[in-house]
Amino acid sequence: MPIISSFNKHISFLKSDIEKSLKKIPINNKPSYLYEPIHYIINGKGKRLRPILVHLSGHAYSADPEDMMKASMAVELLHNFTLVHDDIMDNDNFRHGQLTVHKKWDEPTAILSGDGVFILSQLLLNGFPEIIHRRFNEVSLNICEGQGMDKEFEKDTSISMGKYLIMIGKKTGALLGLCAELGALLAGLKKDDAHILFEYGLNLGLAFQIQDDLLEIFGDESSMGKSLGSDISKKKQTALTILARDDNSQKWLSFIDKYSTISDYQSYFDKNGIKDMVEKSIEHYINKANSALNSAPKSDKDHLRKFTTLILKRKF
Amino acid sequence: MPIISSFNKHISFLKSDIEKSLKKIPINNKPSYLYEPIHYIINGKGKRLRPILVHLSGHAYSADPEDMMKASMAVELLHNFTLVHDDIMDNDNFRHGQLTVHKKWDEPTAILSGDGVFILSQLLLNGFPEIIHRRFNEVSLNICEGQGMDKEFEKDTSISMGKYLIMIGKKTGALLGLCAELGALLAGLKKDDAHILFEYGLNLGLAFQIQDDLLEIFGDESSMGKSLGSDISKKKQTALTILARDDNSQKWLSFIDKYSTISDYQSYFDKNGIKDMVEKSIEHYINKANSALNSAPKSDKDHLRKFTTLILKRKF
Repeated sequence: MPIISSFNKHISFLKSDIEKSLKKIPINNKPSYLYEPIHYIINGKGKRLRPILVHLSGHAYSADPEDMMKASMAVELLHNFTLVHDDIMDNDNFRHGQLTVHKKWDEPTAILSGDGVFILSQLLLNGFPEIIHRRFNEVSLNICEGQGMDKEFEKDTSISMGKYLIMIGKKTGALLGLCAELGALLAGLKKDDAHILFEYGLNLGLAFQIQDDLLEIFGDESSMGKSLGSDISKKKQTALTILARDDNSQKWLSFIDKYSTISDYQSYFDKNGIKDMVEKSIEHYINKANSALNSAPKSDKDHLRKFTTLILKRKF
Repeated sequence: MPIISSFNKHISFLKSDIEKSLKKIPINNKPSYLYEPIHYIINGKGKRLRPILVHLSGHAYSADPEDMMKASMAVELLHNFTLVHDDIMDNDNFRHGQLTVHKKWDEPTAILSGDGVFILSQLLLNGFPEIIHRRFNEVSLNICEGQGMDKEFEKDTSISMGKYLIMIGKKTGALLGLCAELGALLAGLKKDDAHILFEYGLNLGLAFQIQDDLLEIFGDESSMGKSLGSDISKKKQTALTILARDDNSQKWLSFIDKYSTISDYQSYFDKNGIKDMVEKSIEHYINKANSALNSAPKSDKDHLRKFTTLILKRKF
C-alpha cells in the first residue's frame, strides 16, 4: 500500500528530525552530577510518539514549524521526566533498553536529574501564549494525579474499571491529549476547538494503555521491550485483571491462587471472554478518538487518522 | 526602637497574610496519595522569608498587591519543592520541626508530592509576563545545579572557597535574588533594573548561607531548629571547614582526625582565625547587597534595608 508506506516514511523523517532537535537543545555539561544523567535521559531510545503527535496535529492546522518543534521537545521532556521519577517509585531497572537512571547512578541523581528535565521543558515553552503554559502544567498535574492513583491502587484490590479508566486517562491519556491540543493551539485554533483535539488524544491514549495491558499478556516479548506478565508479577492491576475480577471474583481469586505462568493467564483470559472484552474496549476508545477527530475543525486529518492505526500497530 | 518595632509588626502582618493565602491556594484533596502530603508540606512552619521578600521588593516599586501575593506563593512553593526533594537526597528526618515527607510517608510519596508542589508553583504564574516565567525557571535550574554541585562536593574534599561560593550562590542565593527581582518585575521595572534587585537578593543569600554555616557551630540549638555540628557530622563541607583546610591543611586534617566535639571545633575555628574570616566574609556580602540596593532605581528602600538586618538576626 503506497499511501501507508509514504506515511511511514513521513513518520521516520519526523522522528529523526525530533532526535536531531533533542540533541540541539542548549543544555549545560556542568555540574556533571546533574547534566550527565540529563544527557543520558534525552539520548535514550524512546519511540517519540508524543512529539510526533504534536507535529501531526500542528501540521494539520498549519502551525509554525519552529513552534511545533519547540513544543514537541517540551512534551518529550515532560514525558521523560515522569518516566525517570516513576521508575524510581516503581523500582524498575530498565527503560528504553537501557538502565534506569536510579540504577545506573542512584536515587538522588535520578530525583535531581528528573527535576532538571522538567525545568528544561518549562524553559522551552518560553514565548508561547499563556494558554499553552497553563495546559502544559494542568496536564503535568494530571499525570501526577494518575501516578498517585496508580500507587493507591497497589494497595486496593477492589478497584473498579471506572476508576482504572480515570487513572490511565490522567497518567497516559492526558499527555497524548495535550500533544494533539498543543499542535492545534500553536496553529491559533480557539480553546474549545483545540480541546476537541485533546479529546482525540485522550481517547487514543486510553486505547493505547488498554492495548498495553493486553500485550503484556498476549504480546511478543521482543517488540514489547519487557517480559510478558511483568505487571501481573508486580501485583499491578491492569484492565484484564480488573475485568476478570469483576466478571467472577471467586473464580478469579481461586485461579490466581493456583496458577502463575503466562500461558495459564492467557488461557484464563481467553476462555472467560476477558480477552474479548478488552479488545472491544480498545475498539470503543479508538472509535471515540476517531469521532472526536471527525468533529474537529476542518483540515487534512489524513495523517492524524493514520497515526491512530500506527500507534496501535506499534511497528516502528 | 519604635521604627524597628513597626517594621517587625509589618513583617508579622505580611507573614500571617502569606500563611492565609497559602491555605487558600486551590488544591484538590484527591487522590490523597498525592494531595495529603502536599497539604502537609504547605502547612509546615516555614519562616516564609522568600515570599516576604517578594512583597517588600514589589511594595518598594508599587507592584499590584494581588500579583505580589501570587508570585510570592509561587516562590514559596518552589522553595518547598526543593526542600522535599533535597531532604530525600540528604536523608534528613526533620524539616521545620516536623517529619520530612519521605520519613512520614515514604520516598515515592515524597518524590511525587514534591513534583506536584513544583507544578502548582508554575500554575500560579499563569498570566504573568514571559520574563517572569523565564526567570522563575532559570533560577529553578540554578537551584538544581547548586544541589548537583553540593552532591559532588560530598565526594571531593579539595573544594575551593570560590567553588563553594558558586554552589551556595546557585542553591541559596539565586532564589532570594529571584524574590527581590520578581517584585521589581511585577512593578514593571526594566529587565536590567530588576536584575540589580536580583544582585541584592543573591548577595543577601550568600551572607545568609555563610552565616548559617557559622551558626551551625557557634549558634544556639533552639533557635537553629537543628543540632549544632549536624553538617560537619555528615561530612558536609561548609565555609568554615573549607577555610580551615585552605588556611593550614595539615593542621586541619590532624585536628579532625583527633577531635570531634562541638567545643573542640569552636575552639579550633576561634583560635585559628577562621571564625573571624567567616564573619568578615558575611560582612563583605552584606556590603555587596547594600550597595546593589543603593544602585537600584529610586524608591523607598527602607524596608528592604531593614530586611537585611532582620534575616541576619533571625529573630522571628
